[in-house]
Amino acid sequence: FAKLLRQAGTLLGLRFAAPVAGRLRRGLVCGGVQRTGAKMSEQIEKEIQEAQEAVTKQGDTVRSLKASLKDGKAEKAEVDAAIQKLAELKITLEAKQKEFEKATGKVSTQSKEALRAALAGVLERRMFYIPSFKIYGSVAGFYDYGPPGCAIKQNMTQVWRNHFVLEENMLEVECPAVTPEVVLKASGHVDRFTDFMVTDAVTGECFRADHLLEGHLEALLEDKKNPLSPEKTKEIRELLAGVGELKQDSMAAALKEYNVRAPGTGNELSPPFPFNLMFKTSIGPKGDMVGYLRPETAQGIFVNFRDLLYYNGGKLPFAAAQIGNSYRNEISPRAGLLRVREFTQAEIEHFVNGDDKSHPKFESVADLQPLLYSRALQMGEEKKAAPMSLREAVSRGIIANETLAYFIGRTWLFFCKVGVNPARMRFRQHLQHEMAHYATDCWDGEVETTYGWVECVGLADRSAYDLKAHSGMSKIDLTAFEKFPEPRMEEVVRVAPNNKQLGAVFKKDQKAVKEALEGLSDTAAMELKAKLDAGEAYTLTTCEGQSFEIKPGMVEIKKVTEKVTGKTYTPSVIEPSFGIGRIMYCMFEHSYYTREGDETRAVMGFRPVVAPTKATVFPLVQKPALNELATRISRDLTAAGLSNLIDTTGNTIGKRYARTDEIGVPFAITVDFSSIEGDGSVTLRERDSMAQIRVPQSEVAGVIRALVDDRTTWAEVAAKYPAQKAQADDE
Amino acid sequence: FAKLLRQAGTLLGLRFAAPVAGRLRRGLVCGGVQRTGAKMSEQIEKEIQEAQEAVTKQGDTVRSLKASLKDGKAEKAEVDAAIQKLAELKITLEAKQKEFEKATGKVSTQSKEALRAALAGVLERRMFYIPSFKIYGSVAGFYDYGPPGCAIKQNMTQVWRNHFVLEENMLEVECPAVTPEVVLKASGHVDRFTDFMVTDAVTGECFRADHLLEGHLEALLEDKKNPLSPEKTKEIRELLAGVGELKQDSMAAALKEYNVRAPGTGNELSPPFPFNLMFKTSIGPKGDMVGYLRPETAQGIFVNFRDLLYYNGGKLPFAAAQIGNSYRNEISPRAGLLRVREFTQAEIEHFVNGDDKSHPKFESVADLQPLLYSRALQMGEEKKAAPMSLREAVSRGIIANETLAYFIGRTWLFFCKVGVNPARMRFRQHLQHEMAHYATDCWDGEVETTYGWVECVGLADRSAYDLKAHSGMSKIDLTAFEKFPEPRMEEVVRVAPNNKQLGAVFKKDQKAVKEALEGLSDTAAMELKAKLDAGEAYTLTTCEGQSFEIKPGMVEIKKVTEKVTGKTYTPSVIEPSFGIGRIMYCMFEHSYYTREGDETRAVMGFRPVVAPTKATVFPLVQKPALNELATRISRDLTAAGLSNLIDTTGNTIGKRYARTDEIGVPFAITVDFSSIEGDGSVTLRERDSMAQIRVPQSEVAGVIRALVDDRTTWAEVAAKYPAQKAQADDE
Repeated sequence: FAKLLRQAGTLLGLRFAAPVAGRLRRGLVCGGVQRTGAKMSEQIEKEIQEAQEAVTKQGDTVRSLKASLKDGKAEKAEVDAAIQKLAELKITLEAKQKEFEKATGKVSTQSKEALRAALAGVLERRMFYIPSFKIYGSVAGFYDYGPPGCAIKQNMTQVWRNHFVLEENMLEVECPAVTPEVVLKASGHVDRFTDFMVTDAVTGECFRADHLLEGHLEALLEDKKNPLSPEKTKEIRELLAGVGELKQDSMAAALKEYNVRAPGTGNELSPPFPFNLMFKTSIGPKGDMVGYLRPETAQGIFVNFRDLLYYNGGKLPFAAAQIGNSYRNEISPRAGLLRVREFTQAEIEHFVNGDDKSHPKFESVADLQPLLYSRALQMGEEKKAAPMSLREAVSRGIIANETLAYFIGRTWLFFCKVGVNPARMRFRQHLQHEMAHYATDCWDGEVETTYGWVECVGLADRSAYDLKAHSGMSKIDLTAFEKFPEPRMEEVVRVAPNNKQLGAVFKKDQKAVKEALEGLSDTAAMELKAKLDAGEAYTLTTCEGQSFEIKPGMVEIKKVTEKVTGKTYTPSVIEPSFGIGRIMYCMFEHSYYTREGDETRAVMGFRPVVAPTKATVFPLVQKPALNELATRISRDLTAAGLSNLIDTTGNTIGKRYARTDEIGVPFAITVDFSSIEGDGSVTLRERDSMAQIRVPQSEVAGVIRALVDDRTTWAEVAAKYPAQKAQADDE
Repeated sequence: FAKLLRQAGTLLGLRFAAPVAGRLRRGLVCGGVQRTGAKMSEQIEKEIQEAQEAVTKQGDTVRSLKASLKDGKAEKAEVDAAIQKLAELKITLEAKQKEFEKATGKVSTQSKEALRAALAGVLERRMFYIPSFKIYGSVAGFYDYGPPGCAIKQNMTQVWRNHFVLEENMLEVECPAVTPEVVLKASGHVDRFTDFMVTDAVTGECFRADHLLEGHLEALLEDKKNPLSPEKTKEIRELLAGVGELKQDSMAAALKEYNVRAPGTGNELSPPFPFNLMFKTSIGPKGDMVGYLRPETAQGIFVNFRDLLYYNGGKLPFAAAQIGNSYRNEISPRAGLLRVREFTQAEIEHFVNGDDKSHPKFESVADLQPLLYSRALQMGEEKKAAPMSLREAVSRGIIANETLAYFIGRTWLFFCKVGVNPARMRFRQHLQHEMAHYATDCWDGEVETTYGWVECVGLADRSAYDLKAHSGMSKIDLTAFEKFPEPRMEEVVRVAPNNKQLGAVFKKDQKAVKEALEGLSDTAAMELKAKLDAGEAYTLTTCEGQSFEIKPGMVEIKKVTEKVTGKTYTPSVIEPSFGIGRIMYCMFEHSYYTREGDETRAVMGFRPVVAPTKATVFPLVQKPALNELATRISRDLTAAGLSNLIDTTGNTIGKRYARTDEIGVPFAITVDFSSIEGDGSVTLRERDSMAQIRVPQSEVAGVIRALVDDRTTWAEVAAKYPAQKAQADDE
């Protein structure tokens, strides 16, 4: 499968699924799952599918028989027979897949599905993650992380924290998930965080309108029995590319025009209507305070901007970060960890003066060459990302500024660190129409998987939009003050209301009028001055929409040249937003392979820093003295903060290696008699190369610690210590 | 204040607030905040309060002036004057407090409040935590952790994970907070996770009934103008002790009898009614699936028991753990971090065969002597906890079993590790009437603070209740199988239904009858046999409540002696449940002190392992060469995973020390000219002793790493390196 996985990568289409209709362009948008439209040899495909189903079913049988064996409810012979049958079914499946590849020269989507199923088998069997509430039949879009998944998630967020927060001295915060309505009203989520939904007119079942329309249009394109005219094909392709941007009426029209029906039943559909994706609740005992579960962690940072700025001594730029759970009540969750209703985000808000988005550490990433999929490349013929240095991308104006490019570089390094294959990762720039009007530039970090290109990170220059929105709603000043190195002489417009006159004329409205006058922009104030100077009245409109007639004498306006010590501005924000679960899933796919020549031996090739268990300790045979030494070494590992497992079952070493390969343990220590009676060394085996060396038992924990911390490499370690001569059988 | 804090501790009453009415005895119950009933000299108290308010107000003024100074909106002289006034007000306050102590010989509650206010000042000013959504006026019961609070929380959960999960090889899981109703129906939360609420009959304001009743009764006891008869006093004291256990009608009667009125308005109160504390929401687009935010993390573990047991190779005992957020929609949140609506729990479920609750590692904690506040001591005269070895407590039957005692010991060690003063921590046993009927034994880990004894951990032996509840609701088998070392010969009752006859008689009900027969207990089966043997009919009732007449010939029943290989049982669970935010707050109080002789110099004496910033780096004076060296050392610290701050302001070293003392930085490195031109050593200063030594610059990161990891002590380090001779001024 490892080879298939590599092949599958190059065959995937490159069109990125259009973003979600009406969904705010904020944070991590749940798009990015796509299908290929390759021609398939239908008959073989069908046979492959049947063979795959048989394998899956038999796998279940084997598993339940094994459990019964433990409880004494099944016989060993019965289990062995079932395993034998499973092996035969797998051979059949493999033969069918080879036949298909030979016939078509392509990797079957069935193979992609088989790969996904095989990986899913490992992930579920070893409890990396499983559907939540399983004993109650589960609820779509919710997953539990079991012990290895939980450990990987911890490790990954810790790497993230070290890589971003510690390295950059970011201000980390932790805010509640339950959020009062006003916050999400200000951010726009209450009004606009929606997907279009349609329902089956008869059964009432709910669907996402864009999903149905996309599926329907793709089926039309692929329907060879009813070929389309070139014009129609073009029309459909164009509609497909823009499905994510359709407004409610256009969506309704498109569904009608193409006569899209409910899946399964073929019933008519309701017209599309916006469905807000936030989980709603009520805060406090009275039931009158509406709250939502936050759909992203970012808002917690924005509402704290003032305190964070104070904490940072009033200085800009600075970045704040938050790792925490966010919630989206998806209409139809699918694709496992890629589209869930509760997920962990790691978000950064880098606050900076919009006039200067240079970055002092840009040089440290300038020569990295990630795959960039710029707007131009997306609009071009090849539709393919290409490597380019970040220096070049900034100097050619492809990436809008150094700070955004700096975070793209740091993100790329992070992905490499946690084990995503950089050759299968790209940064895709948002097309102009995908971006919100206020955004300056946006790039998505996408990873190639069997589901297509999956958006795992969004990096956006959002200008001053967020702080202005919250300042407007809360009436709290969310600006920063930039002190000039030297005071400057500047021409400023001074507005001096005549309080006495205003009071006499406007009575109780005096305050509102005064504030409105003082709040006038320089341009508006000069317009007002011109009117008054001409002896005319001026109609002043307050924020609340009231209008007042301003007449000469009520206000004095003049341009003066003043010494200005600095300026007040609303900072811009550059936001890298990571979806931890998605990155984990992509990493799982990139890590999974099978041992050369043995498709049943799955290996999760995790990088040591993210591996859930760093090492296993095996006594070569079952002897008290060896068990005791193994226990001592296990304790040394624990003391060094290294998660480890000790396996004293009498299984062959090969079998024990196989078990730990499957949960991605990078290092295995075997103790034998020469560890006690000989030179005291132990065998250290590396998972991917299966190479074995002899290391003094007192040094082994330190060696593994250094490997896990990336302070050394296996090559360096292997050069330092002697190889194990008589290698224990790895098969 | 440090001295006052120590004194305050010994003066606090020892009665533990009764647990919350009707609330399930699960997880971390939000009780534990109490008041003292000491006599106060009212006039001085009032003056102290006024003085305190003046200090707080002036503190705010100073802070906002300082901010304005930065923006160029205030004058230096103005700020200095405000600071001077603040100092004068503090002197007045202190004088009042001394006057009170002299007059009464006691520490004023006002002083406790002053201490709390001073600590709160530091915590909020340095952004350890602040009310959430501040710019929108905040929402009670929600807090944000700012950078230092966030770092401490991370460190504390990491210590917890190492201390429990890694050290004990627990199976860590992570489950969603959004939970479908059925799960919480099974656990009992939907029906019984309530507090009694009363409302002001006129304004509709909501209150917790138990809080109002307690406050009212305590006021009666303390009212010296209207002394109570000894009988009445006794009656009220008894009622007070049981407020938490009152049923709805008794609560109603008590509120009526004592004529409890709404606070503030004095209006009548509504009768008490149960208010469910779970946040409710709806899952999916249809709106027909009720969900709640989990009120505890434990249920996620219980519903996964089957998969976890399989993961663990079918072996027991094993423990699973979860760290995550839980949610309780408290009626009236108060007391800062001690009673919040969203909080982090760390829970362990240790699954064990109820027949054997010994623990293999008990010996490692048996000689620890935590303060135990057993049932007997609570019922006794002194009402005071006493140190006792866990070995003695188990052997005397005070703690029910080794496993529970083991976790008490490990919990005590954890508290010591994170900086809670063990002399101010006790384990309080639940009284018989506080425990649920199924619980075997429960102990709360309580910490003494200015709020009284605060429950931070609950340790409960909950028998097999939870798994049985979920098994009953889900109809999924949640048992374990214990294989006997040797098969045993046992007498068993075999029930063999006669399918043919059952089919002929009961037709479509055949299956139900058969299952009911096979599900009969041994006793019932023997009763049935006796009837049939006597030629009589037997009335069989199925689970669904249907009745069937069983006649001779329909079933054969016999007692046989069989070889039995093991037994199936529902495991018991022992549950240690930690409230991380509460532990943090208690640790803050225990860590806070002021420098001898200077009450304005606050120090947070965090243990290095939890300290948010491990070290600061100062160039002695502002010189490029020193700044460069400081930057290099800062980078070394970062590479060693040590969070650090570099301070190149021209402030005096003393001022810089003071700033970092307040956020509890344990170590400060100062570089001076001899670091560059001399022997290359730097000054390393320890926060609490203020001792300074000279350490080679290449070793300093390693030394701090070892201190943070508790691999060495300051005493050892100070013995190894020379003392700094000419010490930089620390004041």
